[in-house]
Parts: sequence; structure tokens; C-alpha cells
Amino acid sequence: MRSVTDVRSGADGEPRVSHTLTMDNAVEPIGVAVLGAGRMGQTHIRNLAGIAGVRVVAVADPVAEAAELGRTIAGAEVAVSDPLEAIAMPGVDAVVIVTPTSTHAVLIEAAVRAGKAVWSEKPIALDLVETARVVEVVRSSGQPVQLGFMRRFDPGYAAAKARIEAGELGRIEQFRALSRDTYPPSVEFLHHAGGIFLDMAVHDLDLARFLVGEVEEVRAWAAVLADERFAEAGDFDTAVAVLHFRDGAFGVVETARHSEWGYDIRTEVAGATGKVVIEAAQKTPVTFSRRFGYEGDHFENFPDRFEVAFRREMEAFIEALREGRQPRPGPEDALETLRLAIACTRSRAEGRAVRLDEVVA
Amino acid sequence: MRSVTDVRSGADGEPRVSHTLTMDNAVEPIGVAVLGAGRMGQTHIRNLAGIAGVRVVAVADPVAEAAELGRTIAGAEVAVSDPLEAIAMPGVDAVVIVTPTSTHAVLIEAAVRAGKAVWSEKPIALDLVETARVVEVVRSSGQPVQLGFMRRFDPGYAAAKARIEAGELGRIEQFRALSRDTYPPSVEFLHHAGGIFLDMAVHDLDLARFLVGEVEEVRAWAAVLADERFAEAGDFDTAVAVLHFRDGAFGVVETARHSEWGYDIRTEVAGATGKVVIEAAQKTPVTFSRRFGYEGDHFENFPDRFEVAFRREMEAFIEALREGRQPRPGPEDALETLRLAIACTRSRAEGRAVRLDEVVA
Amino acid sequence: MRSVTDVRSGADGEPRVSHTLTMDNAVEPIGVAVLGAGRMGQTHIRNLAGIAGVRVVAVADPVAEAAELGRTIAGAEVAVSDPLEAIAMPGVDAVVIVTPTSTHAVLIEAAVRAGKAVWSEKPIALDLVETARVVEVVRSSGQPVQLGFMRRFDPGYAAAKARIEAGELGRIEQFRALSRDTYPPSVEFLHHAGGIFLDMAVHDLDLARFLVGEVEEVRAWAAVLADERFAEAGDFDTAVAVLHFRDGAFGVVETARHSEWGYDIRTEVAGATGKVVIEAAQKTPVTFSRRFGYEGDHFENFPDRFEVAFRREMEAFIEALREGRQPRPGPEDALETLRLAIACTRSRAEGRAVRLDEVVA
Amino acid sequence: MRSVTDVRSGADGEPRVSHTLTMDNAVEPIGVAVLGAGRMGQTHIRNLAGIAGVRVVAVADPVAEAAELGRTIAGAEVAVSDPLEAIAMPGVDAVVIVTPTSTHAVLIEAAVRAGKAVWSEKPIALDLVETARVVEVVRSSGQPVQLGFMRRFDPGYAAAKARIEAGELGRIEQFRALSRDTYPPSVEFLHHAGGIFLDMAVHDLDLARFLVGEVEEVRAWAAVLADERFAEAGDFDTAVAVLHFRDGAFGVVETARHSEWGYDIRTEVAGATGKVVIEAAQKTPVTFSRRFGYEGDHFENFPDRFEVAFRREMEAFIEALREGRQPRPGPEDALETLRLAIACTRSRAEGRAVRLDEVVA
Repeated sequence: MRSVTDVRSGADGEPRVSHTLTMDNAVEPIGVAVLGAGRMGQTHIRNLAGIAGVRVVAVADPVAEAAELGRTIAGAEVAVSDPLEAIAMPGVDAVVIVTPTSTHAVLIEAAVRAGKAVWSEKPIALDLVETARVVEVVRSSGQPVQLGFMRRFDPGYAAAKARIEAGELGRIEQFRALSRDTYPPSVEFLHHAGGIFLDMAVHDLDLARFLVGEVEEVRAWAAVLADERFAEAGDFDTAVAVLHFRDGAFGVVETARHSEWGYDIRTEVAGATGKVVIEAAQKTPVTFSRRFGYEGDHFENFPDRFEVAFRREMEAFIEALREGRQPRPGPEDALETLRLAIACTRSRAEGRAVRLDEVVA
Repeated sequence: MRSVTDVRSGADGEPRVSHTLTMDNAVEPIGVAVLGAGRMGQTHIRNLAGIAGVRVVAVADPVAEAAELGRTIAGAEVAVSDPLEAIAMPGVDAVVIVTPTSTHAVLIEAAVRAGKAVWSEKPIALDLVETARVVEVVRSSGQPVQLGFMRRFDPGYAAAKARIEAGELGRIEQFRALSRDTYPPSVEFLHHAGGIFLDMAVHDLDLARFLVGEVEEVRAWAAVLADERFAEAGDFDTAVAVLHFRDGAFGVVETARHSEWGYDIRTEVAGATGKVVIEAAQKTPVTFSRRFGYEGDHFENFPDRFEVAFRREMEAFIEALREGRQPRPGPEDALETLRLAIACTRSRAEGRAVRLDEVVA
Repeated sequence: MRSVTDVRSGADGEPRVSHTLTMDNAVEPIGVAVLGAGRMGQTHIRNLAGIAGVRVVAVADPVAEAAELGRTIAGAEVAVSDPLEAIAMPGVDAVVIVTPTSTHAVLIEAAVRAGKAVWSEKPIALDLVETARVVEVVRSSGQPVQLGFMRRFDPGYAAAKARIEAGELGRIEQFRALSRDTYPPSVEFLHHAGGIFLDMAVHDLDLARFLVGEVEEVRAWAAVLADERFAEAGDFDTAVAVLHFRDGAFGVVETARHSEWGYDIRTEVAGATGKVVIEAAQKTPVTFSRRFGYEGDHFENFPDRFEVAFRREMEAFIEALREGRQPRPGPEDALETLRLAIACTRSRAEGRAVRLDEVVA
Repeated sequence: MRSVTDVRSGADGEPRVSHTLTMDNAVEPIGVAVLGAGRMGQTHIRNLAGIAGVRVVAVADPVAEAAELGRTIAGAEVAVSDPLEAIAMPGVDAVVIVTPTSTHAVLIEAAVRAGKAVWSEKPIALDLVETARVVEVVRSSGQPVQLGFMRRFDPGYAAAKARIEAGELGRIEQFRALSRDTYPPSVEFLHHAGGIFLDMAVHDLDLARFLVGEVEEVRAWAAVLADERFAEAGDFDTAVAVLHFRDGAFGVVETARHSEWGYDIRTEVAGATGKVVIEAAQKTPVTFSRRFGYEGDHFENFPDRFEVAFRREMEAFIEALREGRQPRPGPEDALETLRLAIACTRSRAEGRAVRLDEVVA
């Protein structure tokens, strides 16, 4: 019988470009423990399962069936309830933290103290003192730690960043970001989320830093326009912030906590010689035309809009570990973006411009 | 310590919609053997690894390092060189065939005779007699068999199909398909591919049947316009076919074997009351504007354009197995689409219209 | 010989829909005097020439060749240098004012006092006292007066307005406007223009009022980021304003005085149940695809982007005269939009929020 | 009083780029007679009225009110019923023919024999002998004659042509054209129109010659799929033609006589190194987003889609006259495109390939 691989690239009638095998057999697989096997945890487990040279050793979740489902997807060895037990397991080189926000700081700390690399969902914590403390713990541990600002890994934002770094936009003049979440969060969620700037605008604020640079001063406003539950929770459903970047550019961040038409994320950076607009206006590549018009669909939510970004951020983490590089964005990014979100929150509360250097731990 | 899952859906600051766990713990995982671990084989293995309740038991490839890479990605138990050995393994419920075209028929036959479900890359074979024979073997075996016409699972084509089936287009009048492959195939590939209609146009011909229905008569032409190697191999790099559907509609299929600007796939169905256009014009969700203009990018090749379709076809196969349904598209679809491609090939060779009922085994 | 009209609608092989003749022969043509025959004057003359039942009686411009060119285009009877002479001419029912800003107030006043209808380029004047005075003169004259906020007549803005008025957006939550002019103005122009909010942002501020409603309070900032000449003229090239509408919605207006990539005008209104985005992203209906990408062009300047709006505003004016209606937007709109622009200017200068009711004549 | 023109370019708050006056006072205006003042005639009159240095001297139409309306719009001197009278008038340098198809040949001939330049709606005639005769009359007269293939003047097609002529597409491989008319023609129209290839596809066939070059052989099919009235008139409502260009490229032209969703015109030329797609997918620059989707509108009919083309073809004609150049497309283009349409008609009728050199007068 002929070898089944000699023309394998033509097997489906289309593939004809040969790719080299990327696996280096001499390299030991990287052992990973995943902490938290809820919906996002499962997504990360699935993505880890697709990366060659990664072995999910353990999945930890206090809900036994969630842990077991994670284990099954990953083909992992064990499912445990205690995240600290998973961190301590032999063969675990890196820990992926997908637990509730309130547990991030303690688990990051436990992991780096145990000599493990860490990928963690953002934020480290919702207050500056605790965040700064963890940043210091990480720094002194020397362990590689990456935070989950996944939009940076979306192909659109990554391409925009490349253009900007190549100087194709010239001096940056304007940054514009709009975020509308499809579904408002639950009331219980609101009480632990830190408010609309820390919970929602934080993604756009991270993009502002990623694409343009550091901010010097902010002004912010917010209101309840759509849903009175937000007022009851002491929060807002609509917000706007004006950013003054250190290099002089203006930025505007607009946020709303509900969107009838779907997940609406658009970002724009304009400079002296060019402009990038990051927008995924259509979800499904099909247009339906009828009586004098046409229609298409929008993305429903962040898992479908940023599906690729979730995969790429995990690949980037693993790649950094393999190459012995510090992964990005790191704990310092979480700290600076938190500072920006707190400045916006304070500006709104106090009705005045707030300088970033006022916001100190 | 609080449970790590109770508000897990808010873990990344965005997810707030709860999803139910889809795993049924009582269900035995489905054991799969993957035959062929080349580039496409790896893609299918990665996709299988992401489906809950699937266990890749064995990966077979005569190239040891490819088999081993596949095994690693899948977290599979064994890597073997002989596909028949993998088919026969205990615990293998379904066989996924990603081997060269010339081996599809024999492996499908071996698998169904061994009582296994089959997913196979298309085509079954390049000649009608052999294909019809395998269709009959499959039919008498009663085993579920799905063929890899992956475009049907692209969200764009699936949405178009739903519109058409719902009657939103009214009576169909026109079908238009254009396919331009980015990279021309190698000369060696050409000698075993069956010509431009069987090798390339076959995807569009399958869409014609999927979206509109059966064809009564075809006319086809082809030429070498871009690359003399095709003439030397007795093949063509540019082709056009006119289809006359049984219900009266016209269809046009245009194909080219190279595209400087990327993988160019567009399909359109127009009817009395509406039209669908399936087109993914932009790859990355970013636009760069410069001196009086803007630019965006195109898809480079089918793996990036149809990444989701490859995942969904495998999910659909597994789902059909779980629900005890016959998966689609099945061997009969492969047979009818092959008949259509042969009719086009014959029309071009003989310079005349060819009726589909002329093309018999 | 057959009548040349009986199947005239098929004369070019395409036209087949019959339209009724819109001219009522019994109606006397409306006599118009055009004051100012510079570039924009010529545009308005050309548009007037295309409206059935309009006769351009006189064209006035101190530059004799400009007046004569205008006369030729219009097929008008006389070209004069003195605008007051043209206003006074018998047969002149309406006056179209396309002269420099500093002359608008005096010419509007002269025309309405002479019992003529008026269409005038905006603004009436750059200060509130003079504008309020002219508004009062117009009101007591009872003459119909329309101001040249032409964007309201762009099909995109008109369609957006119709959606909003029909309630399709629900309660309005966010207004976003971006305007980038392609070419920065000359230094001489700057000294008489009133600053970036009165000169440039005024179009977006008018749209805010047109699409959403009245504003209660503004905050504004501006900077020189691109061109030091603006600093020398005491003006800015980049500005941002945050609007708080009376009904609670937020608005953001961003403005820049140069754009390498062309005339960049985008406006968006988002509400509880829907969103409209007004944007003309591509100028020429052609896309060029090359190595893995595609490109299209942007509009170069307002005359090409808003060509239709310029025609429609003049048609709307003539139609209002014929139907004996008060045309819109009228002098009160010019007054309120000026108040808004002055509030922004003051907010920037004084570094504080400015309420609209503070800005009084 | 200050000059009304010295800063006129800033009159509307936006215009700031100075343009030179294009009128040369020494040039005598070109006197034009317009024959036919139906709907399309009015469009051409309106466009002529907007061109500096053109004077519409006479408008001829047997329907008195149409002629008078045309005269009014044009500010013309006289309205007459007899086109020959208008041709003969002193001061008439050029004749614009917008009469029914059956009168084109005799009026073109009369005009050039009278020493007048001619712009005429296409076609010259529906049969080859008569067309060839007129072409010869025109040639021997030496008069400049332009035919109304207006799509060539659409900015999209003009830009595509420029790309192709600059060699940016490399060797042309594929031409694709789709035309769907919004409204089917009346039955009376059908009896004089020459059939779907001469009446409708002729626009696409002209584009094939304009963008790619001459055709060697055609194959064509047609059917009645939507409207039985076409069968009764011996015509079709749906057609497809395959073109083989002399240089080897393939072309496909698809045509339908009705379109529920609007006027649907798309053309594409693909070559070795690039592709152009000419398509105006959206009419109004506004998008409305609602429950998980968005919608926009299509053009309703050729007057709105090709409004600019109608203006530009008239400007090009006048410009050629002024510069003493032969305007394009000329009578020879009408002859060759007619030959192509007749070849398609014959191919369909005889069920065989028809070479262009078979179609002789």
C-alpha cells in the first residue's frame, strides 16, 4: 500500500501548500493546570488542547461535574476541587487561572511562589494596593505572568498595532472607542464588579494604552438611561470618558451595557498620515437582498466576536514560555489599566479632571 | 475559600450569560481513529480534540513523526503506521479518513465492513463505477458515512441554505459561483487529480446541488491562460461551466487555479423575491486609510477562510452519531456531485452539451 | 414621422418606467437672484438651473468675470456687481446668498425688507446679538428664510432622521460625530472664522440638534497637534466636545482640520432598540484587489461627498416657496446651533462645563 | 461694501480650496438642439444646462408640453415639434438625440449631413445593415458622433478601465457581468426592442469590449422563468452568454429582466495580477442596526445608479467638441456591440456557438 501521507496535502481536493511540521520531538510537553472550569474555563481548555506540545495535567473546580467535563475535554489526568492542590501537582509547569475575580490575586501569588508560570484572567484585583502588591510579588518571583486582555490578540487589533508601530499613521491625534455589550449583567454581578469603568470600559482603556500610549488626565461621565437596576446597584449603564494622552492626542471612550443589535465594538486611531478602524461589522459572510434592500447579521457576544483572540492569547502565552520570554500583557499592564479605570471612576464621582499621577496605591 | 465557579461567567470581566453544561456524563465517549496525519489530518485531530465526549484512540500515518505529532495533539493512546490496524482497534467507533484520494474507497469499505462509522475526505474515488460500488457497500452495511464537502458547514452557506429552504428567495432563477484558488497545485498532484472540474469545480458543483437542486444538462469550457504546466499535464487553469437545473434555473460556475489576491470564493443564488450572496470579502477586521483611500486584506487560503466549516463538519458528524442519525452529505452526494463534474469534463472534451443522465457507471 | 415621444422611455435601452411630468404650466416661474458667484455660488447656480420652474434672473458678484460666468451657466438675464441692485430687481422673488460670512446678516436683512424670500449660506453671523437681531427682523417680516445646513439634506442623514422620528431607535442614548476636513483652511480664513467650534464643529452640532434634540450642557477641549499656524491664529486643529442632551443622552463630537485620507464624516445615533450609522466610506463604486488585499477610495472633499445634499437643499427651498410653507432649517436653527458652538468655545476657554442657558445675547 | 468674492470659498463654513475659473470668455458657447424631451431627454437637458459654455438653442418634441418643459429647464429659445426643424436651426452646432430607437438612424444621418455634431442614445438601429450604413455616412461626413453607452462614464467603470489600461491586472483571464433590471418592460416595448440580448445584455456586452477587448465567439441561452408575457412576445426574461475573447479570456454575461431587490449591476475583471469589481451595493450612506442585524438599501433603477454617468457622458461629448477630438464611444462601437448582441441572439436561437465573423451585414 502507498504511504497515506505522500500527497496528503491534496486529500480534500484543495490543500496543496506544504507546511513544515512544527513539533520538536525533543521538547518536553508543557504541563498545565487549569483553575476554574466554567464556561470560559472550558474555552481555554479547548484552546490549550489544540496547541501542540501542551499537556493539561489537572483541572480544578469546586463543582465536580465542571471539573470532570474540563478533564474530559482536555484529556487531562485528574480533576480536583481545590485549586491549590492543582498548582502543587508535579508535572505542572504553568497555571491558567479562570476563577472569579476575587480569587485572582491569591491564586497568582500561590502559583508564582510555587515556581509556576501563570496566565490569569484580568483583573488581578479591583483595588490598586492589592494589585501593586501582587505585581511586586510577581516581579520578585521572576515567573512569567500574562494577563487576559484578549482583544490585543484579535487579528484586527494586532494588525492595527503593527501599522502604528511601523509609523504608518504618523503622529497620533485621535483615539475613539465604542463598546456596547449585548446583554446587561445580573444584579449580583454588579455588586462585585467595581462599576462600569472597571468592569466594562477597562477593555477599551487597555486598548488606548496598547495602541496609543500612556494617558495623563481623564474626564468621565455616566448615567442610567436604560435600566434602573443599575441605579439601585449604585452603578451606570452608559458612560463616556475623554482621555488626554501624554503625547497630546485626544481619546474618547463610550460604553453602554446593553445593545439590542449585538456586541458592538469599534475602535479607531487617527494620525497625521493614516487611520486604522478596527470593526467586525458582519458576523456571517452572507447577505440577503430583498425589496430594495439588503441585510446582514452582527455578532451576538464576545465569545463569537473574539473567538480567535481567545485562542491566540493562549498560544502566545505558551510560545513565550517555550522561548523563555516574558509574556505580554503582564501584571504591570493590569496595574496601569486599573489606574486608568479608577481615574475615570473618580473623575465621574468628583465631577473634575483627574490626573493619572493622582491615582496612587 | 469561595467556590471558584459561582460567578465564573464574569471571570474575564465580560461573560455574563450562563450556558448549560452540554456533557451528559452517562454517555460513553465516542472512540475515533484518524487515518492520515498530514496537515489536514492535524486540523481534523485538533477539531476532534475540542469536541466534548470524543476520544481519539489512534492516529495512523506511515510517516512516524506525523503519526506521533497527531497522537500528541489528540492526547491519543497509540500512533500506528497501518490504517487497517487503527480501524481494527478495540474502542474505535468511528474512523476519520484524511488520506490521499486514491485510498479513500478502500479505507471507507474496510471501515464500514468492520462496523465502524466513517467520516472521509471527498471524493470517494475519481471514477463513477468505483464510487457507485462503494455507495452500495455503504448502503448495505447500514453504517453512517459522511463526506467532507466542508463548505456546506460554513456559516455563510448554512445561512443561505436556511433562507432558501424557508422560501425567502421564491423560485430560483440564477446560481453563480466563482472559485479562485490562491496557489496552483504541483505538477505531481495534477496527474492524480482528475482535472479542473473534478478537482476544483467540484466544490461549487456540490454547492449548486446543495443550494438549488439537481442539474439536467451542462456545458463547459476550459483553457490554459496562466501556467503552461497545466497544458503539459493535460489539464487547464481556467474553466467555466453553464448549468441547466431541472427546475429551469441557470447556473454559472467559474474557476481559476491561481489568484494573486488570495482565496476568492463567492456564490450567489437569485430568485423571484430575494437573493443571497455568500462572500467573505475581508479577512482581518481592520481597515487602513491613507492618501484618499483605504485598504483591507483578503483570505490567503481555504484553511483560514473555512476554518469554522472544518470544525462544524466534524461536530455535525459526531452529533449525528450520538443521535443515531444518518449524517449528511453522504456517499450519494459524493456520487451525484462526481457525476456532475464528469459531465462538465466530458462537455468540455466533446464540445457539446452533456445531459446528466448520460453519465452512468 | 412617428412621434418622438411615444416610447421615449425606452430610448436608451433601459428606461421603462413612466414618470409624470412635474411641471404645472399655469405656475409662474420663480425668479431668483444669486448673490456671490464664487465656487459655491456656481454650484448653487448649476443646481437652480436644473430645477423646473426656476428662472435665475440676476447673478451678482463684484468680480465681473465670476458674475458673467454665473450668468452664462444660469442662462440669466443680467450680471451685476452690486448685490443690493440684484435684490431690488423686478422679477426677483427669492434671493440666494453665497457671499462671505461677514455679509450674510446685512444681505438677509436687505432681502426680507425688500419682501423677498431668502436662502442663505450659514451662519447668519458669528455673534449671538447680531444673529438674534436678524432672526427678529426675519420673524417680523414674515418672509420665508432657509439656512444652508446642507447635511440635513444628504440622503443618509435624511433617512436616519426618518428612522428616528418613526421611533425605530427607541429612547436615544448616544450621539457620536466625527468630522475631519481634508484640507486645512488658509491663515487669512482663520482670522474671520470664529474658531474650530463655530467654523467646523458647527455642522456636527447642527446634526446633534437635528437628529437628537436640544443640548443642556457642554464640555469641550481643543489642541494644536498638526499645524502650528493654528496656534499663531489663536485657533486649534483638533477638538472634542461632550454634549449632555436635555433628555439625558450623551453626545461626543470630534473634529480635526486636516485628513490625509480624505473628507471623513461619520455620525451615529444609538438608542434602546436600534442604531443608525451615517457613513459614506467609499467614493467610487469599484474595488481593486491585488496581492492578498483590496483597496477603494475615499471622498476628497465636501463638494463630492455632499453633492446631492447641495442639490436637495435648493430643491427643498424652492418647493417650500411653491407650497407656501416656511422652509427648514430656518434662522432659529442658525441661532440655536450658534449658541451651541459658542458654548463649546467658552467651555474650552474657561475649562468648565457650560450650560446652554448661560449663552445669551 | 467688501467684495462678495474675496473669501467666497469659505462662505459655507467648509469650502476652503480655491479652484480656478474654467470658463474661457473668448470661446463662443456651443449651441445644442435636443431632440426628444421625455424623461431621459429632460435628464440630458438638465445636464447640458449645468455645463458652462453650452447653450441649449432648441428643444424638439411632438408632445408640446414636453417640448415646452424642456425649453423651460434649458432656458432655451424655442420649443418645436419637428426634430428636423431643430437640426436645421442657425446657432445649432450639436444635436442631442433622445428619441425612440426607430428614429435614431434617420436623425443621426440628417444631423451629420447638416454638418452638425451628434450625441445619440444607443442603438443606431437594431439591424446590422442599417447600422453599418449609418456608420459609413458618419465616417464620410467627418462629423463627431458619440453614442450613449453611459456606463463607460460611471466613475466605477472609468476607474476600472484606467487600472486595466495601466496594466495593473496583467493578462485578463475572466470577465463576469450581471445585470438585473428592477422593473420588467411593458409588452408594447418588447415588440420593438429586439430581444433580451439586444435590449438588455447590450450594456454588459459593451462593457466586455470596453474593459477587455474584442470577442471571437459566443454561446448563449435564455428562458422564461418569471413572467409569461415574455414568452408571448417571443422573448425571454433570463439569459446567460459565455464569451470567448480573442486573447483567450472567458467572459460570462448573466441578465434578468426583473429584480425584487432593485437595480443589480455588477461587473468584474480578473487578471494575472489583480482584479477589479465594479459594484454599488448601497444607495444611501446609512445603515440601520436592529435585533442582531443591520440593513441598508439598494438602488432602485438606472437613473439613480448611473446619475453621474449620464452627466459625465454629456460633459465628455462637449469637451471633445471643444478640443476638436473624435468623441468615444462612436458609431463603430455601436456597430461592434450590436454584432455581439446579434451573435448571442443567433447562438441562442440555433443552439450552437456563433463566431463574430459570421455576423456580417
